[in-house]
Amino acid sequence: MQVSAPYATSLTFGPEQRRVEVGQLVDITPDQPFRFDSGAEIGTITLAYQTYGELNAEKSNAILLCHGLTGDQYLVGPHPVTGKPGWWEDIVGPGKVFDTDKYHLIVSNVMGGCMGSLGPKSVNPLTGAIYGRDFPVITIADMVRAQVLLLDALGIEKLFCVVGGSMGGMLALEWAARYPTRLFACAPICTAAKHSAQNIAFHEIGRQAIMADPEWGDGNYIARGKFPAKGLAVARMTAHVTYLSEIGLQEKFGRRLQDKHTPSYGFEVDFQVESYLRHQGAAFVERFDPNSYLYITRAMDYFDLAAGKQLSTVFRDTPVRFCVASFSSDWLFPPAESRHIVRALNAVAANVSYTEVETDKGHDAFLLDVPAFHATLHGFLEGAARARGLV
Amino acid sequence: MQVSAPYATSLTFGPEQRRVEVGQLVDITPDQPFRFDSGAEIGTITLAYQTYGELNAEKSNAILLCHGLTGDQYLVGPHPVTGKPGWWEDIVGPGKVFDTDKYHLIVSNVMGGCMGSLGPKSVNPLTGAIYGRDFPVITIADMVRAQVLLLDALGIEKLFCVVGGSMGGMLALEWAARYPTRLFACAPICTAAKHSAQNIAFHEIGRQAIMADPEWGDGNYIARGKFPAKGLAVARMTAHVTYLSEIGLQEKFGRRLQDKHTPSYGFEVDFQVESYLRHQGAAFVERFDPNSYLYITRAMDYFDLAAGKQLSTVFRDTPVRFCVASFSSDWLFPPAESRHIVRALNAVAANVSYTEVETDKGHDAFLLDVPAFHATLHGFLEGAARARGLV
Repeated sequence: MQVSAPYATSLTFGPEQRRVEVGQLVDITPDQPFRFDSGAEIGTITLAYQTYGELNAEKSNAILLCHGLTGDQYLVGPHPVTGKPGWWEDIVGPGKVFDTDKYHLIVSNVMGGCMGSLGPKSVNPLTGAIYGRDFPVITIADMVRAQVLLLDALGIEKLFCVVGGSMGGMLALEWAARYPTRLFACAPICTAAKHSAQNIAFHEIGRQAIMADPEWGDGNYIARGKFPAKGLAVARMTAHVTYLSEIGLQEKFGRRLQDKHTPSYGFEVDFQVESYLRHQGAAFVERFDPNSYLYITRAMDYFDLAAGKQLSTVFRDTPVRFCVASFSSDWLFPPAESRHIVRALNAVAANVSYTEVETDKGHDAFLLDVPAFHATLHGFLEGAARARGLV
Repeated sequence: MQVSAPYATSLTFGPEQRRVEVGQLVDITPDQPFRFDSGAEIGTITLAYQTYGELNAEKSNAILLCHGLTGDQYLVGPHPVTGKPGWWEDIVGPGKVFDTDKYHLIVSNVMGGCMGSLGPKSVNPLTGAIYGRDFPVITIADMVRAQVLLLDALGIEKLFCVVGGSMGGMLALEWAARYPTRLFACAPICTAAKHSAQNIAFHEIGRQAIMADPEWGDGNYIARGKFPAKGLAVARMTAHVTYLSEIGLQEKFGRRLQDKHTPSYGFEVDFQVESYLRHQGAAFVERFDPNSYLYITRAMDYFDLAAGKQLSTVFRDTPVRFCVASFSSDWLFPPAESRHIVRALNAVAANVSYTEVETDKGHDAFLLDVPAFHATLHGFLEGAARARGLV
């Protein structure tokens, strides 16, 4: 395996293809070409990642944090594209849940992503052109195999823990199932062992919205100087509603009008919830790649950890200790999905704790200030750290 | 008030603007121009309606059935555009729930619709051009005021019952609240007294999908020989998911692949649920008008029967007897919305029965074969018919 020195680069974002510096990246050339589940092969893969906290001498305190569908390696901000805080900024730092005085945190942009890792926005070295639709369709297993290569490149044999919410939880489950000797602990949060029909349906709507936008042009928009912003915004709006709970929306917005006392009797923004959704769509197109959205949603759709078999079979004799968590008002990855995982782990007598956190914040709760969830994660990491001899 | 004799006409549908014969229609010219909630006025309104069963000599056996968002006056098929059965075909006919030997059924296409009633597809007599976006934004109250004019035109002073599901339930509630002396009974089904933030959000996504389609062209697609089929299909797909339940989707499709044993690793249809959704989108664009979709969803969004006040105030001293029904797995209009209506009716000591039907069929249950629901409706109508002296 050959690995380049970490380097920074600039990438383009949004309809204006604004150039932004991102880092750090490595190019990894395995001895055998990287083989995707689809059968496609690529010789060299690029992964973008960030680390926080020091790796100890025994290399035993590394935590791999796996981001959700549209997350990335910026656990802590300011995010180079949006300028906003990172996705778990509030719980990362000295003395916090992810205590950077104790742990070495690694976050890598998933393969297929648009923040520097190999994906549809990358240049195909065989043609010199941007991959676009020529990029191989990826799976969660492909993403994890790429992460394994990154860990090999970093010289980390065994992770202390793999943590992830939503899609990140799928990666965490894949790690535990396929590489049980390479992690000590695993925290899959508000996730599922296989993607449900309803979730496939919502993803398909998002993809259709993007592909219906004529600016998408079969995925070759960058070369053509176009950008399917409207389609991507509709996709994001659809997804965003699924991240919230009905009661959360009701409490946050209800039927309140936006900056007016009477309805406009038109199709512009009348309700606050419309304004909020449009804002979510508009902000998203500035930071995310439409093709990446197609590829990553597809990877989630294909996820079925046990490939139709009994889920417990993939965890047989697992040495990994698990912390499974879900949120009461999450209807995208409802608690029943987490309980299914817990039952499978119980069936093989695995070391597993399960917490169903009461909250009205819906699926997004894993990214928000939910003290009971943070306490759960904190307690699990502390206990596992003692068991691992880290403290 | 001047009323034309019932007449038939032909209308255009779908991307190919296929001409289809629909009927019957009446033109109603009230003594004062029809005034919309928005303040707009129109001199003559056209309503398309169908009737089933005979009106008795006392004109006391008429039931007004109010259709849902994309329904129409064809309670019984074959539908002139789709060739399919009508939306309540299974429960209409001699001896059935809506017994055409006993009742005179009236179904009118709502104002703003696209099956013959005045709407954005109509020609503006002042300009000679299709209204498009020039059509006044409508409300549920506007739709009901138009129905009142139709009933006046038909010489029916008091309806035996107003029945409707979903948006139709909103119309039924509006009837009971505003015209309590003009109906004997009322059955609002799987509906709400005000549209929720989450439902406004889903509607807004659908509208954005339509308006994002460049073929929509600010609503002037017909004149321009265009049709925003892709946007309308995405809107329908989004809405359609909300009509089903998660468990229903899981049971009906799960993760089964469509006509294949292994995934294609592409973006064409892999899963049955994708095929189903795409079919729903494609079929819808052949029968529905994109602008009508904008107007009617907007009308639902604006619906707030008590305008922010205590709901019970609108039902004070109501002489109407109510049958409220909801479906356990309906997450678009969840049972809590119906219970809210029932509590308001209880607070004014109204005559009300409430049934929460156990089913995994989601919101769509009101259109499907759900015997417990049909039995409830049947029992309510029979009891009310006895009380009304119809049997």
